[in-house]
Amino acid sequence: MALDQNWFTEAHEASGSAISFRITKKLAETKTPFQFIEIYETTDWGNLMVIDGCVMLTSRDNFLYHEMMSHPALFTHPAPKRVVIIGGGDCGTLREVLKHADVESCVQCDIDEQVTLLAERFFPELCDANADPRAKLMFDDGIAYMRKLEPGSVDVVIVDSTDPVGPAEGLFNESFYRSCHRALREGGLLVQQSESPVAHLDLIRAMREHMGKAGFGAFATLPFPQPCYPTGWWSCTIAAKGEKIPMFRAADAERKTFATRYYNAGVHMGASAIPEFMLDF
Amino acid sequence: MALDQNWFTEAHEASGSAISFRITKKLAETKTPFQFIEIYETTDWGNLMVIDGCVMLTSRDNFLYHEMMSHPALFTHPAPKRVVIIGGGDCGTLREVLKHADVESCVQCDIDEQVTLLAERFFPELCDANADPRAKLMFDDGIAYMRKLEPGSVDVVIVDSTDPVGPAEGLFNESFYRSCHRALREGGLLVQQSESPVAHLDLIRAMREHMGKAGFGAFATLPFPQPCYPTGWWSCTIAAKGEKIPMFRAADAERKTFATRYYNAGVHMGASAIPEFMLDF
Repeated sequence: MALDQNWFTEAHEASGSAISFRITKKLAETKTPFQFIEIYETTDWGNLMVIDGCVMLTSRDNFLYHEMMSHPALFTHPAPKRVVIIGGGDCGTLREVLKHADVESCVQCDIDEQVTLLAERFFPELCDANADPRAKLMFDDGIAYMRKLEPGSVDVVIVDSTDPVGPAEGLFNESFYRSCHRALREGGLLVQQSESPVAHLDLIRAMREHMGKAGFGAFATLPFPQPCYPTGWWSCTIAAKGEKIPMFRAADAERKTFATRYYNAGVHMGASAIPEFMLDF
Repeated sequence: MALDQNWFTEAHEASGSAISFRITKKLAETKTPFQFIEIYETTDWGNLMVIDGCVMLTSRDNFLYHEMMSHPALFTHPAPKRVVIIGGGDCGTLREVLKHADVESCVQCDIDEQVTLLAERFFPELCDANADPRAKLMFDDGIAYMRKLEPGSVDVVIVDSTDPVGPAEGLFNESFYRSCHRALREGGLLVQQSESPVAHLDLIRAMREHMGKAGFGAFATLPFPQPCYPTGWWSCTIAAKGEKIPMFRAADAERKTFATRYYNAGVHMGASAIPEFMLDF
């Protein structure tokens, strides 16, 4: 069947597949100095944010991504106090990070303030924690921000960016990873969205290679479901400034004092299981 | 963007989402007494089988589904010797089942022989095991077949069917489950594809309820990624004729003597982790 104008479609050229959502209307659009952002109302997925034609999030399924970008890394680091998010302008990752009472500060540095302004209007639930005194929202170049950070000052860096084309391209190379490595304390963790295990295995491999060249000593790629992204299957990759990724704090995850919708200790352990076709990493 | 005629699209009305694959040509189509089957060649997913407009499988990602429909149940049953597959005409589940050396016989009962004939032509790799002396391919009504089976004669029943509309509707109700329960030996397992955890939670709930009324005593729903199905996230539900689902034979799974591409002991354990939003089952 052909979809009519009541559907928004993102075609993913590299994998020859496409995902569409049925929409009722366009709620907003804005051309920023960095990108073109659209917000749609959908019939079944709440609101939908699109940047440069790529689906960023829907109200309904973003919890999968945001929880998996934050809790596995934060429950793996032994004592995460200072967290930096590069990108993440929709504030959903920030909200999850600040659920951890141990976190003392979280800087979110997105290049495009419009993303946050639109999130506040159309995804207010993700912006719950924006007024938390531990949160600092910056709108600046994340690459430059990481380069200038005081060495050894951060526990966890979360790279919550768009795909490695356009504004986010510079967040997937050795030079950026070197800045992250320098900014992290010994034992610190970098976590980055690492695309689809089924469509982007080469990219994941390349990311880990670049992270390794930048000094990171150990890696874990955790797959998770994400219906609105190409292939419906996504991943984050955690890299350690150190010899190995510590065992995650399973007991703390089991006793977590905050609500989640996907993440729990079992899900964390499950996401750490490496599918057979990814074993050669 | 709008997709042109070089894409095959399945729109999933119930969830207001759609998945498309870029195609190069139609390889075959046939109207059978039961359904309309089409085979396409895609640019990136190998061949694509569509039944009544719904994507059944692609060459590239069917391993996820077929492995998860078979190995978790077979490594959970303590000694699966006699297996029945209802549906499964593409023979991919049969192939996985027969990788288990302990299995002495596996009957595949699909109502539509055309599915198997097309699979033999366009998915020959899935039909590897069709000539195995332990395999018996039947083309008959699975509901009637299960009703007539000798009580207590089967260890594992796998319901590998299309969605619960059309020919497969009768595979999702108490009467059918009662037949499965009677045909199973004590401790036997029923496993059925149970749609998307994110789009069909009500269906999964209803299935488990009907299974319970038919006498099954314990249930486990295992999610897994499946890019070609609505939302890209799918599940199977295992039901036990007995008080509980046994712990899976993790040591046997770890020492498995056959190749898989997704399944392994870790993945099995991972799929058994229940996401937070499914905890109230």
